[in-house]
Amino acid sequence: MKDRGASRTEAVMDAIRSRIAGRALSSGDRLPSIRSFAAAMRVSPSTVVEAYDRLAAEGLIRARRGSGFYVASSALPPLTLGEEGGGRIPEVDPFWVSRQSLDADPDAAKPGCGWLPPSWMPEAALRRALRNLARGESSLLTDYGGTRGAVALRRLLLARLVDEGLQVSGENLMLTGSGTEAIDLICRYVLRPGDTVLVDDPCYFNFRALLRAHQVRVVSVPYTPSGPDVELFEAVLAQEGPRLYITNSALHNPTGATLSPQTAHRVLVAAAAHDVTIVEDDIFADFEPEPSVRLAALDGLNRVVRIGSFSKTLSASMRCGYIAGAMEHIETLVDLQVATRFGGPSPMVTEVIADVLSAGNYRKHVEELRRRLTGARRAVGDRLRAMGIEPWLMPRGGFYLWCRLPEGCDSTAMARAALAEGLVLAPGNVFSVSESASPFLRINVAQCADERIWGIMQRSLNACSQSEPGAAVPGR
Amino acid sequence: MKDRGASRTEAVMDAIRSRIAGRALSSGDRLPSIRSFAAAMRVSPSTVVEAYDRLAAEGLIRARRGSGFYVASSALPPLTLGEEGGGRIPEVDPFWVSRQSLDADPDAAKPGCGWLPPSWMPEAALRRALRNLARGESSLLTDYGGTRGAVALRRLLLARLVDEGLQVSGENLMLTGSGTEAIDLICRYVLRPGDTVLVDDPCYFNFRALLRAHQVRVVSVPYTPSGPDVELFEAVLAQEGPRLYITNSALHNPTGATLSPQTAHRVLVAAAAHDVTIVEDDIFADFEPEPSVRLAALDGLNRVVRIGSFSKTLSASMRCGYIAGAMEHIETLVDLQVATRFGGPSPMVTEVIADVLSAGNYRKHVEELRRRLTGARRAVGDRLRAMGIEPWLMPRGGFYLWCRLPEGCDSTAMARAALAEGLVLAPGNVFSVSESASPFLRINVAQCADERIWGIMQRSLNACSQSEPGAAVPGR
Repeated sequence: MKDRGASRTEAVMDAIRSRIAGRALSSGDRLPSIRSFAAAMRVSPSTVVEAYDRLAAEGLIRARRGSGFYVASSALPPLTLGEEGGGRIPEVDPFWVSRQSLDADPDAAKPGCGWLPPSWMPEAALRRALRNLARGESSLLTDYGGTRGAVALRRLLLARLVDEGLQVSGENLMLTGSGTEAIDLICRYVLRPGDTVLVDDPCYFNFRALLRAHQVRVVSVPYTPSGPDVELFEAVLAQEGPRLYITNSALHNPTGATLSPQTAHRVLVAAAAHDVTIVEDDIFADFEPEPSVRLAALDGLNRVVRIGSFSKTLSASMRCGYIAGAMEHIETLVDLQVATRFGGPSPMVTEVIADVLSAGNYRKHVEELRRRLTGARRAVGDRLRAMGIEPWLMPRGGFYLWCRLPEGCDSTAMARAALAEGLVLAPGNVFSVSESASPFLRINVAQCADERIWGIMQRSLNACSQSEPGAAVPGR
Repeated sequence: MKDRGASRTEAVMDAIRSRIAGRALSSGDRLPSIRSFAAAMRVSPSTVVEAYDRLAAEGLIRARRGSGFYVASSALPPLTLGEEGGGRIPEVDPFWVSRQSLDADPDAAKPGCGWLPPSWMPEAALRRALRNLARGESSLLTDYGGTRGAVALRRLLLARLVDEGLQVSGENLMLTGSGTEAIDLICRYVLRPGDTVLVDDPCYFNFRALLRAHQVRVVSVPYTPSGPDVELFEAVLAQEGPRLYITNSALHNPTGATLSPQTAHRVLVAAAAHDVTIVEDDIFADFEPEPSVRLAALDGLNRVVRIGSFSKTLSASMRCGYIAGAMEHIETLVDLQVATRFGGPSPMVTEVIADVLSAGNYRKHVEELRRRLTGARRAVGDRLRAMGIEPWLMPRGGFYLWCRLPEGCDSTAMARAALAEGLVLAPGNVFSVSESASPFLRINVAQCADERIWGIMQRSLNACSQSEPGAAVPGR
């Protein structure tokens, strides 16, 4: 019955479409009245109304309130992927990888991107959670959420933080629109234009993009396999007086290195001596084989603010992050989020996340991810070495390999060559404030399953070996 | 079968709970091994694993990687509504109404809030859209979206904008995390600390909260039933040199007034003469009985930037807004949104919105809303008049009545008295930069169905009649 109704609606829509296509109806013309066209098509008036409404939603016709339907004044310009990014020649800057990978074809191979393929995500659990949501409370589907975000999800997060040894309560925690937005809120709260911010070199390229938006001075310290170079860290704090230090402690992006307890302790001592606030971005926590030291846990959320999200292990479509910090900071950050986006994540999104996290088999899913990633890191590492591309270290977990290209190769030139063949790579200098990482490339091992990428990698590597390094490094 | 499995899991969970409650297992103790406890409970090991995982998700126990499960080191602090807002004595500032209404009980009566009750929203369509999404493409459920937001929803928005006579293409449009976030992005793009921004007096209180976050100087012009007072508008532009003017053209918040064509034209001429950018917040567009003049349509997205969202007519839980503006602005705003939140709205949210908008009966839903609101404005208006509370004007649409209290009544005092009885009101001065609106109150007619509010309204009105006005007006 429903199907026959639907097909009748389609028939009416097609009839109108063909009249417009055939110029029987042209721009601005009034459509046949509901009643007369229903009679002509031998369908019920409600079928015609349904058809007209759908055509209006498509933009082909429009409803003029109180006076029927008219052929739309102009056709819609097509939205093509080509339009994305505005067709400009892309500068290889801190925005470059985000633009290329976010707007790439979902099925395109993206060894440069920072997330797992859909097939690695807990799809069944997400679909079940959505079915539950479709039967859920009305207010979840229609209302704004509370200013700190859904209680159910905050409970689950508190459980994890307490587990880590953090003495936290509800007043220390808030949900945000995304992990990036969590860092942005903290920056808005702590920073003023002209302030100095310290990051690792290399660091996640979007930290650089984010800090540009805050018009601050960015300084960096080299990152070692056990954390930032501590001597230089202490020197920079003394000389540059940064207000803020942004870092990943576990499975550092892009290197995959992990902070050592000794380094963590010295970093905190130096930060205390120079009154520096630290943002610890813990987004890769679940990929660790076993937990490593955390600045937030050592410091007890005194000068360290912890942020995270669910984009890497659960879903990046569920835009949601969190901030754990000192109570008085959270108070202000909650007001700031209300003022700047009228609250946190979508209540429907937080409901889905809480459902998947509490379903029980989430832990098994994450263990499976770790198992698969261990294999992928090994296999991809071997193939890269065979091409003369050396991992800087073999990380304990996660999906990144920070690799050094053969002598004389510039990764920016290689990334340009690869993009010309539709392959998105992440060249070293987008991660480097000092622009000193042109021989490096960040490879996402989970995005290397497609055999075709290896041919493109080899060709772009050959291409960039010919180009002399200096030339392709973008100026600041 | 599934149910029996679930009940067995529950039984195992209860057994562990009671051991912890009875101190047979205490903080830090290792739980029985999966195998032994499965034997003891006569269930399969997988049932015990499921039970332990759920208890871990609840925070009662924790999984130590590789070494089994332990009783969590500390119980979770309860998250109660009392904790929301941090328990401080609320200052009646531009954040006040947001805090009170966002964190209020979903079923609480909130004549002060800015949205419709869940029962007014297209619940069936939302549930259908969620069921469709549960069967949808994997990448929708797991991936980040494109930098400009979902193509399907942008197509529908373009259709509406073209309808209004705007010559727009895909390059003029982007989706944002919310309507407020759209304004915030534009402010970050246009404003620098110390700049001057012009708003209406009264204006939406969150414009004031948002601008505080940008550390700008805020000036205002009185709003008349046909738009801003044009003489004063021209004078303020000449004297104060604002960079930006933020306003609602149709069904202005809080007054419900509508911009007249003559005023619109003069506003644009003056803005051009003084090179002022205008943000036209069109969030109430769908509530108009018939379309009125729009600055964006007159100006052709030259110096006017249009923003909007779906929170008022479709769902506030679907956090999503949009910006329509000049192509070169959109380019930069897209990068800014990637830098500060790594993209726009949740792809799953935009999919649900596009589904509901294109289903066809959305237009009927909105017509029904308009019909109900016309009745509610009349009925609530009559009851208010009977209490000596006079609507400043009867709006053409929407759910706000901007009302003047009887002589000598101060709305801030009235709102405090009402809050003491659990009723959230929106006192005039939170909308007024000049703090000159203490005799006014914004009433949401759709939130007045609960009979009990009228007794509270009367008592708080009596209470504030006794208090002398000046006293309760908050200092700046």
